[in-house]
Amino acid sequence: MQYAWPIARLIKALSGLPGIGEKTAQRLALFLLNAKKDYIEELVGSIGELGEKVGLCSMCMTFSDKDPCAVCSDASRDERTICVVADFRDMVAIEGAGSYRGRYHVLHGCLAPLKGIGPQDVKIRELMERVASDAVGEVIVATPFDSEGEATAHYIKKVLKPFNNLKLTRIASGIPVGGYIEYMDPSTLGRAMEGRKDI
Amino acid sequence: MQYAWPIARLIKALSGLPGIGEKTAQRLALFLLNAKKDYIEELVGSIGELGEKVGLCSMCMTFSDKDPCAVCSDASRDERTICVVADFRDMVAIEGAGSYRGRYHVLHGCLAPLKGIGPQDVKIRELMERVASDAVGEVIVATPFDSEGEATAHYIKKVLKPFNNLKLTRIASGIPVGGYIEYMDPSTLGRAMEGRKDI
Repeated sequence: MQYAWPIARLIKALSGLPGIGEKTAQRLALFLLNAKKDYIEELVGSIGELGEKVGLCSMCMTFSDKDPCAVCSDASRDERTICVVADFRDMVAIEGAGSYRGRYHVLHGCLAPLKGIGPQDVKIRELMERVASDAVGEVIVATPFDSEGEATAHYIKKVLKPFNNLKLTRIASGIPVGGYIEYMDPSTLGRAMEGRKDI
Repeated sequence: MQYAWPIARLIKALSGLPGIGEKTAQRLALFLLNAKKDYIEELVGSIGELGEKVGLCSMCMTFSDKDPCAVCSDASRDERTICVVADFRDMVAIEGAGSYRGRYHVLHGCLAPLKGIGPQDVKIRELMERVASDAVGEVIVATPFDSEGEATAHYIKKVLKPFNNLKLTRIASGIPVGGYIEYMDPSTLGRAMEGRKDI
């Protein structure tokens, strides 16, 4: 059946969301056809106002509706430690783990020369300025352990080298908690062996 | 981590969609934070304009951006046969099957006295008016085979009885194609036995 154009258009737009295929988009669109006006308004409003009300924290570059963000303005957090993440979602994950009490810096991407993403496209300059002006003791690089994340970590190491008193660390790579060694990929096993510690 | 209010609000709104739980809503919200402005505008526009541009076909009550809808205005379809469905999605499914060449009538619900949904809350009056004025030969009741769908079918039978020359039918209930008999529920098996045909 040919959907009426406004319905087909909505299905196409919804299919652009991550994890939403054609079938799910159809189901959502038909749900929205029957949905209450209040709900539609709330949904449209909350998506539409996201860009207006959420900006970047001028300190750590995270998404926030306040500047500085809740983490940067929390005096109980260690301002001498900065955890550098590629993506806001990584910050959410680390915060969710609950043990880290320092601050963050969100790069909004990794260096990817093949995709044309260079240092000017991620928030590395802002990190350097922050390290230069703030009393930062340690920068923990928590970019992913793939080629782009590693390249980014390498680049950060290079540009932060001039800061003599700065401790620069990389989060550990190895076997996840609960992970079966037999099912691990060779690179993870290699990392885990390499990073072995005295017990 | 406490999400900024506009993000938390969006997560809540997205969680209201069918099949979208808290985790998926978070993932969609974080995707939308990073999404291109054009896409956001298209998504918001297509949801927002759905209600404005899509109305009900004055003949069959289906959702359509034209009146009459594409099916009702298709002269090649048999206008003497009306398939009554509870929901627009059922019409989409039957059209998807591709073999039905008559027209439709969408009730937008089933009778459910326990939920306070009576005949005036679904498009039964419109069906009666249509049968009374049009040259309708057959009404096929394709409401679901649950208590509400059956009650609705029963009610339609009652109100359409006065039309002497009208053929009133109910779609068949039984074992789905490819379904294993051993796994069928007792009611379906009962229906299948009851509806058996000479071969």
